[in-house]
Amino acid sequence: MIEDIDSLDNWRRTAYSKDITTANSGEEVIVFGWVASYRDQGNLIFIIINDRYGSIQITVKKNEIKDEIYQKVNNIKEQASIGVKGVVKLAKKAPNEIEIVPIDLKILSKSEKTLPFNIFAKTLPSIDKRLDIRAFDLRRTRAQNIFNVREIVIKAIREYYNNTDYREINTPKIISSATEGGAALFPILYYNREAFLTQSPQLYKEQLIVAFEKVFEIGSAFRAEQSRTLSHLSEFISVDVEEAYVNYIDIMNTIEKMINNIITRLNESNILEKFQIEKKQIKKFKTYTYKEILNLLNKRGVEKEWGEDITSKDLKDFNEEEFYFIIDWPTASKPFYIKPNKDNQELSESFDLMFGNKELASGGTRISSKKLLLERFKEKKLKTKAFESHIKMFDYGVPPHAGFGLGLERLVMSIIKEENVREVTFFPRDQRRLTP
Amino acid sequence: MIEDIDSLDNWRRTAYSKDITTANSGEEVIVFGWVASYRDQGNLIFIIINDRYGSIQITVKKNEIKDEIYQKVNNIKEQASIGVKGVVKLAKKAPNEIEIVPIDLKILSKSEKTLPFNIFAKTLPSIDKRLDIRAFDLRRTRAQNIFNVREIVIKAIREYYNNTDYREINTPKIISSATEGGAALFPILYYNREAFLTQSPQLYKEQLIVAFEKVFEIGSAFRAEQSRTLSHLSEFISVDVEEAYVNYIDIMNTIEKMINNIITRLNESNILEKFQIEKKQIKKFKTYTYKEILNLLNKRGVEKEWGEDITSKDLKDFNEEEFYFIIDWPTASKPFYIKPNKDNQELSESFDLMFGNKELASGGTRISSKKLLLERFKEKKLKTKAFESHIKMFDYGVPPHAGFGLGLERLVMSIIKEENVREVTFFPRDQRRLTP
Repeated sequence: MIEDIDSLDNWRRTAYSKDITTANSGEEVIVFGWVASYRDQGNLIFIIINDRYGSIQITVKKNEIKDEIYQKVNNIKEQASIGVKGVVKLAKKAPNEIEIVPIDLKILSKSEKTLPFNIFAKTLPSIDKRLDIRAFDLRRTRAQNIFNVREIVIKAIREYYNNTDYREINTPKIISSATEGGAALFPILYYNREAFLTQSPQLYKEQLIVAFEKVFEIGSAFRAEQSRTLSHLSEFISVDVEEAYVNYIDIMNTIEKMINNIITRLNESNILEKFQIEKKQIKKFKTYTYKEILNLLNKRGVEKEWGEDITSKDLKDFNEEEFYFIIDWPTASKPFYIKPNKDNQELSESFDLMFGNKELASGGTRISSKKLLLERFKEKKLKTKAFESHIKMFDYGVPPHAGFGLGLERLVMSIIKEENVREVTFFPRDQRRLTP
Repeated sequence: MIEDIDSLDNWRRTAYSKDITTANSGEEVIVFGWVASYRDQGNLIFIIINDRYGSIQITVKKNEIKDEIYQKVNNIKEQASIGVKGVVKLAKKAPNEIEIVPIDLKILSKSEKTLPFNIFAKTLPSIDKRLDIRAFDLRRTRAQNIFNVREIVIKAIREYYNNTDYREINTPKIISSATEGGAALFPILYYNREAFLTQSPQLYKEQLIVAFEKVFEIGSAFRAEQSRTLSHLSEFISVDVEEAYVNYIDIMNTIEKMINNIITRLNESNILEKFQIEKKQIKKFKTYTYKEILNLLNKRGVEKEWGEDITSKDLKDFNEEEFYFIIDWPTASKPFYIKPNKDNQELSESFDLMFGNKELASGGTRISSKKLLLERFKEKKLKTKAFESHIKMFDYGVPPHAGFGLGLERLVMSIIKEENVREVTFFPRDQRRLTP
C-alpha cells in the first residue's frame, strides 16, 4: 500500500489567490488549488490553479527549474490538485497581475481520467451528464458564482431573523402523518411502523410559537412530486417562519424586509454583475388580491373563474414586477390551517409571494381556535385521527399566529434568472435522480 | 362559525418584558404573553404573563376597572394567551420592578383544559408524559434556558465557520446507499425504488471539497438505532465539516477554536449560571492516543485489548477533563474513508472529541487516492457497486482532505450537564416516539 501521490507533509497554505497582489512581489508563498489550465509554450509552462476565491498563475521556466520538479510539472493534468511553494513575481497579464515561480511543487491528487466534458467550454453537455460528476461540474465558474449567491442569500435570511427576535428551530423530518393531507409523501419504514418524510415543518412551527413566539427554520423538506418540471425538486430547502400575535399582513411586511436585506447584501457584493443583472432596487412590493389577478387575466384573454387556481402558466406574461404578493385567496384553495376572513369566509387571510410568474412562498394567518380548526377538518374531509397530537395542543390555548414557507432554491433561481432549479442545488433529487 | 376568542385587531406589541423598566413608569404599552400565574387576592388580581424574554406582572384593581374587562379577567386561566393595553407603574416586588395596570385587555386564546402537569412544579412527571404535550412543556423555565443555550451554541458554531472561509452547504438527506455500510438505516420508498435516509453527509461533504475546499453543514441526520439509551436519538442535528489540504491534526485545532468560541459566547451571556455551572475556561484540549487510554484503563482495572472499542461505560470514571481528544485509533475500527497512518497502517489518522465519557465528534484525515480507497473497501468487505458514483469522482483527482461530524444535541447536553438528550431536542424521535 504505497501512496501514488505526494504527501501534504508540513505544507500548509499561506495565502489564497485573493490575498496575493502586486504588493507581495518577492515574497515566498505556499498556494494550493486545482489545475484549471496547463499551457506548454516551449521554454515556459503556464499553469493556472483555482482555489476557493479565484485563480493563480504558476510560471515554470524549464531551464531554471530542478529536473525533479520539471518531471512532476510534466505530469500535471487538468483537474489535479497541486501545491506550489514559490516566489511572487509581477506579471501584467496574469490574474491579480502576479505569478508564482515555483521553488518546489507537490502533486496532491492524480487526475487519472479526463473529465467527460470541458468545464470551461462554451457549450456544455446536458445537465444530467454534468450532475453525474457533480463535484467537478461545480468547479465551473458559473456554478461557483451561483453558490456564492446562494451563500449570500442564506446568510442574509439568517441575519434578518437573528436580528429581529426569531429563535432558530429544528423540527423533525420524520413524521407520522401528512401536513396538508396530500399524497405527495415519501413513506419510511420506521422501526416496523409506517412514517413519512415531512413536506413542511408547518405543524411543528405552529407548536413552537406556543413556547418561543417567533421561530424560523432553514431545513430540508421533501415532496414526492410526480411532475418533472424545471422548478420542482423532491428534496429542497424550506425557509419557514412562524410568529405569535400577528396576522398575515404583518408577516408580508417582514418578508419584504427580509428580501430587501438579501437585495442589500447582493448589491454590496457586486455578484449580480457576473450574471449580467443590474443591482436591484429596495422597494415596497406590489400587492394584488386574488380577485384583481383574475380580472387582469380575464382582460388578457386568460379565462378563469373564481375559485380556480392561478398557475405559473397563466402568469407567463405577467412580468411587470419581480417580487409581488397575491393575497386573499379562496379559503377552499388553501390548507386547513389557514384562517378564513372574519367578514367573508369564502376568502382567507393568505398570501403568495411571487417573482414574475413563479410562486416563491406561501403564507397566512393560522387558525388558533380548536373549534374553527375542527370545522375546517370537516370541510376538507380530513381525518382528525392522524392529527390527534397536534389538535390536542389547542385545548390549552394557542395564541393567534401567522407565518410562511419559502423555497430557498426557487428564490435563488429567480434572483439570477436561472431556469433550472437543479443548477442552484448542490445534489438535486428528482423522480429520476438519486445519485450522486 | 363565530370566533370564541378576542380578535387581535390592530393591537400590536409595543414592548417585550425585557424592554420595560422602571424608567418607563407612566408610559402606555401593549404587551402579550401566556398566563404563567393568576392570583386573586380579594380586591387585587395579580397575573404574571411570560413572553419570549421573561415575565410581566399585570395588576388588576377590581374596583377601578370597567366591568366588561373585569368579566374577562375573571375568566382567565393559566396557559391562555392574553394581550394587555395598560400603564407601566413601579412595583418593587414584581419582575423588573414594574407592573402594568390594564386599560383594556384581550383574551387571545382559551385554555379549555388544565395541563396534565404543573409546569412550575418542583417534581415533574416522566419525560414521556411531558413530550406528549411538548409545546407547553417547552414553556418551563429550564426548557427555555436549555434552548437559549442551544441557540447560543448553534450561532457560535456558525459564526466560527462563517468567519474562517467555510462554505455552508446542504447535502441530500435521501441517499441510495449507506455511508458506513452499516445496518442502522431507515429505508424509504422513493418513486418505487428503495432509498435510505442519510446517517451522515460524509460522502457528500467529501465531494464538495473538490469544488469549494472548505465546507460545513448543520443539518438533520438519521440513525435507526436499536438502543434506547439516554444519549441516542433516531433523528439528530449533525454538525459536519470537511476541508481540503489539511490533515486530522489541523481539524482538531479548528474544533478546539470553534468550541472555545462557543465557550466565549456562553460566558458572555451568563446563561450557565442558570444551570449552576461556572464559567468555562478557554483552553487547549488534552490529547490522548488510543494506546494511552488503553494503558490508563488497564491501570484502573478495566481490561481491554488492543483493537477493542472504548465505550462510554469504560470511561465512566474518566472525568478529569471536560473536552479532550482520543487520537490514532486502530484502522480496523474506523470507517473505510479514514486514512491509515503512512508509517504504521494498523493506526489511522483519526480522532474522537470527548466530553467526560461521552463521544461528541469523530473525525480524521480522509483517503484521497482511489487505489487506497479500493483497498479499504476490500478489507472492509464492502461492495463497491453501491458507491459507484462516489468512487468515480476519485478518477479525476481529489485533493487531500480531513473533517469531522459532531452531534449537536450531545454537545448541548454535555455543556449543561443534562443526562437525557431528549431534553435538549425540540421534538425527539426514538424507537418508540414518532409524535408530536
